[in-house]
Amino acid sequence: MIPNSPIRADRIAADIDALAAITEPGRPWTRRAFTPKFLEGRKWLEQALQQLGAETRIDAAGNLIGTIAGRRPELGTIMLGSHSDTVPDGGRFDGIAGVVAGLEVARALKDQGLTLDHTLEVVDFLAEEVSIFGVSCIGSRGMSGTRPAEWLKRTNDDVTLERAIAAVGGDPFETTPRDDIKAFLELHIEQGPVLQNEQLDIGVVTAIAGITRIEIIVDGRADHAGTTPMGARKDALTTAAWITLGVEELGKALASGEEHFAATVGEFEMTPNAANVVPARVRMLIDARAELRADMERFIEELGKGVAAIAEKTGVTVSEPRIVSDNQPTPGHADLLDVLDAACDTVGARHRRMASGAGHDTAWMARITKAAMIFVPCVDGRSHTPDEFATTEDIALGAAVLLDAVLALDTKLQETN
Amino acid sequence: MIPNSPIRADRIAADIDALAAITEPGRPWTRRAFTPKFLEGRKWLEQALQQLGAETRIDAAGNLIGTIAGRRPELGTIMLGSHSDTVPDGGRFDGIAGVVAGLEVARALKDQGLTLDHTLEVVDFLAEEVSIFGVSCIGSRGMSGTRPAEWLKRTNDDVTLERAIAAVGGDPFETTPRDDIKAFLELHIEQGPVLQNEQLDIGVVTAIAGITRIEIIVDGRADHAGTTPMGARKDALTTAAWITLGVEELGKALASGEEHFAATVGEFEMTPNAANVVPARVRMLIDARAELRADMERFIEELGKGVAAIAEKTGVTVSEPRIVSDNQPTPGHADLLDVLDAACDTVGARHRRMASGAGHDTAWMARITKAAMIFVPCVDGRSHTPDEFATTEDIALGAAVLLDAVLALDTKLQETN
Repeated sequence: MIPNSPIRADRIAADIDALAAITEPGRPWTRRAFTPKFLEGRKWLEQALQQLGAETRIDAAGNLIGTIAGRRPELGTIMLGSHSDTVPDGGRFDGIAGVVAGLEVARALKDQGLTLDHTLEVVDFLAEEVSIFGVSCIGSRGMSGTRPAEWLKRTNDDVTLERAIAAVGGDPFETTPRDDIKAFLELHIEQGPVLQNEQLDIGVVTAIAGITRIEIIVDGRADHAGTTPMGARKDALTTAAWITLGVEELGKALASGEEHFAATVGEFEMTPNAANVVPARVRMLIDARAELRADMERFIEELGKGVAAIAEKTGVTVSEPRIVSDNQPTPGHADLLDVLDAACDTVGARHRRMASGAGHDTAWMARITKAAMIFVPCVDGRSHTPDEFATTEDIALGAAVLLDAVLALDTKLQETN
Repeated sequence: MIPNSPIRADRIAADIDALAAITEPGRPWTRRAFTPKFLEGRKWLEQALQQLGAETRIDAAGNLIGTIAGRRPELGTIMLGSHSDTVPDGGRFDGIAGVVAGLEVARALKDQGLTLDHTLEVVDFLAEEVSIFGVSCIGSRGMSGTRPAEWLKRTNDDVTLERAIAAVGGDPFETTPRDDIKAFLELHIEQGPVLQNEQLDIGVVTAIAGITRIEIIVDGRADHAGTTPMGARKDALTTAAWITLGVEELGKALASGEEHFAATVGEFEMTPNAANVVPARVRMLIDARAELRADMERFIEELGKGVAAIAEKTGVTVSEPRIVSDNQPTPGHADLLDVLDAACDTVGARHRRMASGAGHDTAWMARITKAAMIFVPCVDGRSHTPDEFATTEDIALGAAVLLDAVLALDTKLQETN
């Protein structure tokens, strides 16, 4: 199906169908981390890994890992994978595509009777999506030694995350980061429309954008909407409308360069929200994503100035923008990006470099190893919805890129070490 | 206290304090129609009316009425009053000031040994505020024969409005409008800042604005806020922001004339309202108030054009504005406005003519009689809040205006009849 590659699209399609069948009934496709359906999905994955000859285990961080020992295990590990958990009412591909692609790479190697010098591991990270404990990337943070200690006390229905990690087979108190991994590669659906629009097969991910969340409170005054003259109001909504348009304008300006930038007012709550009362208060939460830290810093600075100017103009009090959370961008490792570009060329995939606006396990793995990702196209850029779709052919082509990259790395990592 | 007037501010202050003491505990000041506290307030009012020699009754519509028979009852009735019910956590003056002023006018007449030719009635209308049945002006609509028949089937906690009207002493099936009332006057706090700002004592209300409520739905598309390029979005919030600013601009333009106009986006709900999702949908409810129907018609027309232009510019689908409710403005009766102006001059009250942006029982009474209102100042224009405040002196001056107007009408209505 794919020239010069032992990757089989039919097996990928069957795997995705098999996992899709394991969903909360009536809510396709829902398999949230820590739930019985999630464990059922993992059981299926464990068997699939065992069938191709991998040894399986749950690591201390709660990740499911299938290991195929290398001929020279002292070289360390090349790891492939993503996550099998989903958001509620999510799709069949976000995360799953990367786990299945890793599985298929291992199977294709076995089919060809190839054993790497490095040990190969396929991983299903625990709880990449925002979990029932309110936090995400629990497994990749755990593996990289970056899971905040206080997270273990988080609860859901009176069960702590500490107990939940133990219940899936992990050891919440073992927090030593892995130091044997020499490279990590993740395939993921793009979750955006760029590859589809440009009719490309693969995005080689230059960076996972930094995510900064900024809260703004607009404090107007609740007045009678019928009796208060238009000129005598402190309308929080109209001031918030100016700020919303300012955020969009600033976002568009910063997005006009080569590097990825996006800014969204994602949360917007108005009170008292009564027909006959002038809006008194609006809380806005801005989600900003930047491939370049300099862009984010410029955004934060310009936002502060813009908000002050709007407050001055409208006479309504606006809080200084408050940074609620702030993550740095994570560049893909330059060596791996070169290997991935070359692999695309080898398998005949039309590719470009692009940033990821979304967060991924790769960002945490980059703390402990060379890490990079590739994107495969995703229909109309939709994800986190039952409509999410990626073609088997696109995923298979991505798996072929991974396979070629793994083979190249098995050699190259020995040269550079 | 007031030159040339037997109105006594001390009695007004005592009445307002007495009613303020009858409130839901811990929630000053709450006395919602149909509740035990409301009935307790009415009991107090009934006794106050009886003490000044009025005969009291609950009419078919559930209004409490105190009657002082005229020397020539065949001339019909002059009615004064407002409402004693409040919004939740409301104030001590909205409605109450008008009932107490009516009470004081009747007491002042009695003090002077004066009996009118017309019968004088002081009324406490049932449920002027939006009630626990979701509708307002139940008593004045009932008295004027304009209470929709289907309202009786409305329920609160499984009790129908029909039963609730009967429980306060009314007869829900008697719907004949009163035809003996020759004039109705209501004193009310302004609920806006105009009189305070202009240092005036009385507003003679030219019209009660028509209220039109208009719903607009903005239908964007939920996309990933991190991965969807700024130029590839259908952001419902930014489109709704443009519409919000358009409504304000249009409202300001129409408010720039002599006549009252106001437009407010009072309800604004966004979905999914999640930090990392581009806003998919916004529902907006516009509250527009116009003294002149022509202004409202122009607003509706320009709004439709403006919304279409914004949708065209942003590429986001916007529903055609849907008129949810639409009430015509109600002018104050010209004869009464002249009498009220003259009364202001007589008692030395600084006055102006002005429209009411809020709805009032007077708008319904105008269906069956000559009707008009006066406003007294209200601190900072605040109302429907515990902070609502009007000075005893201002209310007393308003009562003096009412007294003078009643005396003038008692003669004039005989001339014009």
